[in-house]
Amino acid sequence: MEEGGTRNREEGKMKETTIVVYERPDIYDPIFIEGLPGIGLVGKLAAEHLIQELKAKKFAELYSPHFMHQVLIRKNSVVELMKNEFYYWKSPDDEHRDLIIVTGDTQVPPTDSYGHFEVAGKMLDFVQEFGTREIITMGGYQVPEIQGEPRVLAAVTHEDLIEYYKSKLEGCSVEVIWREDEGGAIVGAAGLLLGIGKLRGMFGISLLGESLGYIVDAKAAKAVLSAVTKILGLEIDMTALDERAKETEEILRKVEEMQRAMMEQVTPKLPHEEEDRGYL
Amino acid sequence: MEEGGTRNREEGKMKETTIVVYERPDIYDPIFIEGLPGIGLVGKLAAEHLIQELKAKKFAELYSPHFMHQVLIRKNSVVELMKNEFYYWKSPDDEHRDLIIVTGDTQVPPTDSYGHFEVAGKMLDFVQEFGTREIITMGGYQVPEIQGEPRVLAAVTHEDLIEYYKSKLEGCSVEVIWREDEGGAIVGAAGLLLGIGKLRGMFGISLLGESLGYIVDAKAAKAVLSAVTKILGLEIDMTALDERAKETEEILRKVEEMQRAMMEQVTPKLPHEEEDRGYL
Amino acid sequence: MEEGGTRNREEGKMKETTIVVYERPDIYDPIFIEGLPGIGLVGKLAAEHLIQELKAKKFAELYSPHFMHQVLIRKNSVVELMKNEFYYWKSPDDEHRDLIIVTGDTQVPPTDSYGHFEVAGKMLDFVQEFGTREIITMGGYQVPEIQGEPRVLAAVTHEDLIEYYKSKLEGCSVEVIWREDEGGAIVGAAGLLLGIGKLRGMFGISLLGESLGYIVDAKAAKAVLSAVTKILGLEIDMTALDERAKETEEILRKVEEMQRAMMEQVTPKLPHEEEDRGYL
Amino acid sequence: MEEGGTRNREEGKMKETTIVVYERPDIYDPIFIEGLPGIGLVGKLAAEHLIQELKAKKFAELYSPHFMHQVLIRKNSVVELMKNEFYYWKSPDDEHRDLIIVTGDTQVPPTDSYGHFEVAGKMLDFVQEFGTREIITMGGYQVPEIQGEPRVLAAVTHEDLIEYYKSKLEGCSVEVIWREDEGGAIVGAAGLLLGIGKLRGMFGISLLGESLGYIVDAKAAKAVLSAVTKILGLEIDMTALDERAKETEEILRKVEEMQRAMMEQVTPKLPHEEEDRGYL
Repeated sequence: MEEGGTRNREEGKMKETTIVVYERPDIYDPIFIEGLPGIGLVGKLAAEHLIQELKAKKFAELYSPHFMHQVLIRKNSVVELMKNEFYYWKSPDDEHRDLIIVTGDTQVPPTDSYGHFEVAGKMLDFVQEFGTREIITMGGYQVPEIQGEPRVLAAVTHEDLIEYYKSKLEGCSVEVIWREDEGGAIVGAAGLLLGIGKLRGMFGISLLGESLGYIVDAKAAKAVLSAVTKILGLEIDMTALDERAKETEEILRKVEEMQRAMMEQVTPKLPHEEEDRGYL
Repeated sequence: MEEGGTRNREEGKMKETTIVVYERPDIYDPIFIEGLPGIGLVGKLAAEHLIQELKAKKFAELYSPHFMHQVLIRKNSVVELMKNEFYYWKSPDDEHRDLIIVTGDTQVPPTDSYGHFEVAGKMLDFVQEFGTREIITMGGYQVPEIQGEPRVLAAVTHEDLIEYYKSKLEGCSVEVIWREDEGGAIVGAAGLLLGIGKLRGMFGISLLGESLGYIVDAKAAKAVLSAVTKILGLEIDMTALDERAKETEEILRKVEEMQRAMMEQVTPKLPHEEEDRGYL
Repeated sequence: MEEGGTRNREEGKMKETTIVVYERPDIYDPIFIEGLPGIGLVGKLAAEHLIQELKAKKFAELYSPHFMHQVLIRKNSVVELMKNEFYYWKSPDDEHRDLIIVTGDTQVPPTDSYGHFEVAGKMLDFVQEFGTREIITMGGYQVPEIQGEPRVLAAVTHEDLIEYYKSKLEGCSVEVIWREDEGGAIVGAAGLLLGIGKLRGMFGISLLGESLGYIVDAKAAKAVLSAVTKILGLEIDMTALDERAKETEEILRKVEEMQRAMMEQVTPKLPHEEEDRGYL
Repeated sequence: MEEGGTRNREEGKMKETTIVVYERPDIYDPIFIEGLPGIGLVGKLAAEHLIQELKAKKFAELYSPHFMHQVLIRKNSVVELMKNEFYYWKSPDDEHRDLIIVTGDTQVPPTDSYGHFEVAGKMLDFVQEFGTREIITMGGYQVPEIQGEPRVLAAVTHEDLIEYYKSKLEGCSVEVIWREDEGGAIVGAAGLLLGIGKLRGMFGISLLGESLGYIVDAKAAKAVLSAVTKILGLEIDMTALDERAKETEEILRKVEEMQRAMMEQVTPKLPHEEEDRGYL
């Protein structure tokens, strides 16, 4: 989707995090599922696969002046600001819940805590417009080594949800561990959406897959998505997840090379500095 | 206390430091006592012990978008934003003053001066609603070595308070030194609450215990609390303070390990970087 | 132009990025051309040369509290805040478009993403007052080596503009490459003006010249300007461009020496530190 | 002056830079002279000496949430936020101008450009209330070596002021050099007050004394003050300036030691880190 929908000057003000809405889907009480870039790109991979398999439809985009001050090159020489994208899936029956899924290019850089809170707050404002009460966040959990299959670490906003999610997860193909690392932390959107949501009377669960931190970790993404789809009561074909991982890894290698060059784009240098640097 | 009290969307906005109030205690002219995390966790240990021994009751929580953008894992797999907590103690007689005590997970990170001022200002706004005029701040003072018992370093908002507090401290079991290090500083809440309070017509004293900077310094906390309770005219059993120190040290060791992992949670890495890193 | 035009206290408030307007030129539907400092000073050189050859007239200045907190020494011992300058050129006929060109001393430092968005937003607000819809941004693209003449890398806001600009560029003396580095980025104003402009219904193209990153790269500037003037259908004499490059390189060498001294201007040092430092 | 004057809750809000006014002096068209901490403490020393010799009277204080988040220990164990102080001197005759002089504890730290602009803007707002049009800023200019007496480097807001100040400086005991380092910079208040003042229709001169960057440079301060007093047409006894320098150097040595300790006040450390650190 490129530039459909109404564009007006308000959206382009960019004085604060802005959500451009293309469509008002007819959904109610949706579960909000977050899968933004993080360790091993686990959450993003999982979200993108879920969106693809469900054929979820994009209906809004989030831009922020707290994201990195750059545009990305998309396909076909087209540039665009960094963004997050909201997709919806309308359940075909009464047994399954409607869904809003968010994924995207980036989170706020780690030096800007206030920006993290601002973006998470705007996301919650938005999904609350659709009656969202329940939140599931997905991501990676860095470990030094993994024996066998990656496990999924779970944490909830309220203690009485543990039994609820345990029953939902019964028979799940992956091992779900309930976190006991008191004092541990979940950094970024995967944590903040639950923390701020809790202050707004919302509730939910965080599911993080053990990951070595490789650039794309399809195994961890598959583990997390297995747990999520079990909770949602959905059957999802996971075959394409491995293929997606290979494509993304290739693109991100190129990106990191370019980012090294881009990072210096606004700083002039003296000739003697160029000599010290030798080959780029 | 988990989610008692009224939650409304205003508190969840998190556009600025927010105080969630559970109860409006019937206290008047309380002394505001601060014990937030710092050197040796001296202030926090002292505050937690005082709260426990007095059976002070929690009545409000402070959240801030200037705190680190993460949630902490609490007991039983429950996640929550980082927060500060306000406790009150209603004096049983006319001889002792009512108290408001604040402690918590964190202060604002050192790179965000404006955030520090914002949080301190909101705290003062809040305690002033209860008629607070007097402030006692507690913390650690880093020294390279300590001979014998740690001493307590005192500083006040107004010169004519020295005699007042000296008389209150007469017979105190610890040695209280009046600071003469003109040009020295007290960084963070222990200083700012007094400095900003002074601009608001409030007054008070800072009591910092000499500490080597160990993760938890129960000896320094005990020294500071001895001075504080002398000023308040209260008798407090200190036995549990040593025990609390041991528990906290264990938890914080685990936390620091996890924080190293958490700190990289939102940054993808290339395989070659994983090789350079070897074991986490 | 020194202090002509109306000065009023509003412009001096500097609470946010401020544009001081000297003249309201009689132009319509101008193309907005950006050439601010960046890699190789390519964009700035190109813009300054275009301004000089067209005899474009300065009509506004942009100041920002997000720029570095300093004044620059101009000619004749005069000090002035860092600024960007807007020039206009009114086309003498119907075949050529009116132009607004921006260049200047600096962009926002890379640590302040929000500041970058704020300045770009104010620039767009301003040029939109004159009916601007189309944007051309100019700059350098860092490469480790260049064989033969530097090429120009192009990217657009909308896919259907590729054919449009290709036809405009037909017969261009330099080689224009359409970017295929999906996931690559354009950092700073050269990217943001297009990205934010796109959200406001504007459109345009970015033209970056391959550059080794030398302090001034007149060859890359010439390549970029050749492509830009081809699109604009203008014939520009490039001789002076090489001469300008030599002057700028000399001035910037002096600047960097002074900046090292200036950077420490507000920090006192102990004598022992001065010994360690030896010669400045 | 301690806590005279009216304190009201507005001043204690500290949401932005705040000026507490003790007295509204009966002065008109004063020259605003700035001498805040910087290289060699040259400006501060010069300002403090001028204040002392003229017996200028303090009438306002400036506090800012952009200053470091700490209180300083003053004399007699008293704590106070970091501040800047405004003094006035009412000329006894028609031949000399009234003066407002500002000096203080600190400028905004170098990482916060926006804070620098905010503080400078508030200062100008304030002095403009008294009809200030003319500004003289004082400070140090870092050089690697000085032969003989330090010279004073001058720069102005408007070119036509050079002759004006040259005539005022005729017969001055120190050598005043007019800056020709196009592209050089003046960082912080000494530059910003002139740069922002210029946008408000104000004018003035910056006088910086050559300094090696020692913690206190009384020679450079004397040179700058000689130039300033020549412009003002005042005769000032310089003897005490050397004595003041010795006192300040002693205090600041202690401060830097303490600041090393203070800087870590809010960060707990593990025992193993204490071992690595050995003696503080």
